[in-house]
Amino acid sequence: MLPSIKACLFDTFGTVVDWRDGVAREAAAFLARYGTGKARSLAFADAWQALYGPSMEEVRAGRRRFTRLEVLQRESLETILPTFGVNASNVGDAELADLNLAWRKLDPWPDVIDGLGRIKARRIIGPLSNGNTSLLLSMAKRAGLPWDVILGSDTLRAYKPMPEAYLRAADLMGFRPDQVCMVAAHNEDLRAAQALGFKTAFVPRRTEYGPGQATDLAPDRAWDIVAEDFIELAVALG
Amino acid sequence: MLPSIKACLFDTFGTVVDWRDGVAREAAAFLARYGTGKARSLAFADAWQALYGPSMEEVRAGRRRFTRLEVLQRESLETILPTFGVNASNVGDAELADLNLAWRKLDPWPDVIDGLGRIKARRIIGPLSNGNTSLLLSMAKRAGLPWDVILGSDTLRAYKPMPEAYLRAADLMGFRPDQVCMVAAHNEDLRAAQALGFKTAFVPRRTEYGPGQATDLAPDRAWDIVAEDFIELAVALG
Repeated sequence: MLPSIKACLFDTFGTVVDWRDGVAREAAAFLARYGTGKARSLAFADAWQALYGPSMEEVRAGRRRFTRLEVLQRESLETILPTFGVNASNVGDAELADLNLAWRKLDPWPDVIDGLGRIKARRIIGPLSNGNTSLLLSMAKRAGLPWDVILGSDTLRAYKPMPEAYLRAADLMGFRPDQVCMVAAHNEDLRAAQALGFKTAFVPRRTEYGPGQATDLAPDRAWDIVAEDFIELAVALG
Repeated sequence: MLPSIKACLFDTFGTVVDWRDGVAREAAAFLARYGTGKARSLAFADAWQALYGPSMEEVRAGRRRFTRLEVLQRESLETILPTFGVNASNVGDAELADLNLAWRKLDPWPDVIDGLGRIKARRIIGPLSNGNTSLLLSMAKRAGLPWDVILGSDTLRAYKPMPEAYLRAADLMGFRPDQVCMVAAHNEDLRAAQALGFKTAFVPRRTEYGPGQATDLAPDRAWDIVAEDFIELAVALG
């Protein structure tokens, strides 16, 4: 029981939703039509995701002004197309724009809706994601994620693990960092939050990166909570 | 039926919640203890609300940098205390801070929860209020307002009817203004929204200012929708 926690903020890609299978599913028809075939759609999801961190790093390092995630994702998409045999000049802009929305159409892990509902009964819940507001909103509406509040990275004008992302979110909600629990499947995210005084909860997602995942299989610190899924997390929060 | 409307944004104070009775209720014990008695609690609510517009006008006019609504509300509170026989030096800071939270503890009009639930089934719903995020979030959690997204004035860094308030909200949600319907009990709010290309819905709240209300009793233009309450609004939206 951690009654001092007023709000839980959830990392989204990987922690709440399964980006790999979702992006692969959304890309399959596109790759069958324009590329080397839908059989490589999981590799396509991996390749797209591999540019996610580096694209934000330009902003974090101050080499590029704040740019919405979906703009970065679109650039990353165009970067990887040749690797998958797609000649971008054969593809209409509307089709690329539509494929870029794949990240809005991700399914939650099986425990998420039930777990979030339980946590929401006693606390404020919201995403703290590098996704932009419209992406998170559209995802929530499609998947039924019952957020109380959505503070997108374009609202916060910062990408995790920049301290501003965490601190501005807590401040906008009207809480001190120690009243907020950061929930993530990624140790790095929790390290950044803990350094700022947030409570931390680790929920492993051991197949986020596929069956051969080698990272974030276990907590690498004694986080405030370690739970197998969001149901266990709800119980631990009390 | 207006299928092109993807989201409805709701003015909050007056349109969604009854600030006058709520503030009076929250202030009654305070006035009984420190002031001229709880019998004047409605007048106290009116006096506090009367400074709401002028306090924001300093920001709108550019004479003051953006300041969170609850900071302005606290200043307004201290301004009116002498009028109600309260000597502020007799009152602890914590008590004033607590009274200042009255605006978070307002009840929705009777049709609101049902109506919002119906609208939310097909569209995105959120407040577009001059309230700050933490105020709107706390209010929603207490009252059960089922917002999909909360874009507070401190997120938007603008107070209605500044154009930036409306335009930034639509942009963050990823919609064009004509895909968003502004819902308000105040003609001025709708005029500002319509001028920017938003759809508009007027829902009168004829006792918002008490039994002698003389303004906003009726639509003063042919707004896209005029509805008696949020249930009618849900039907009109289709």
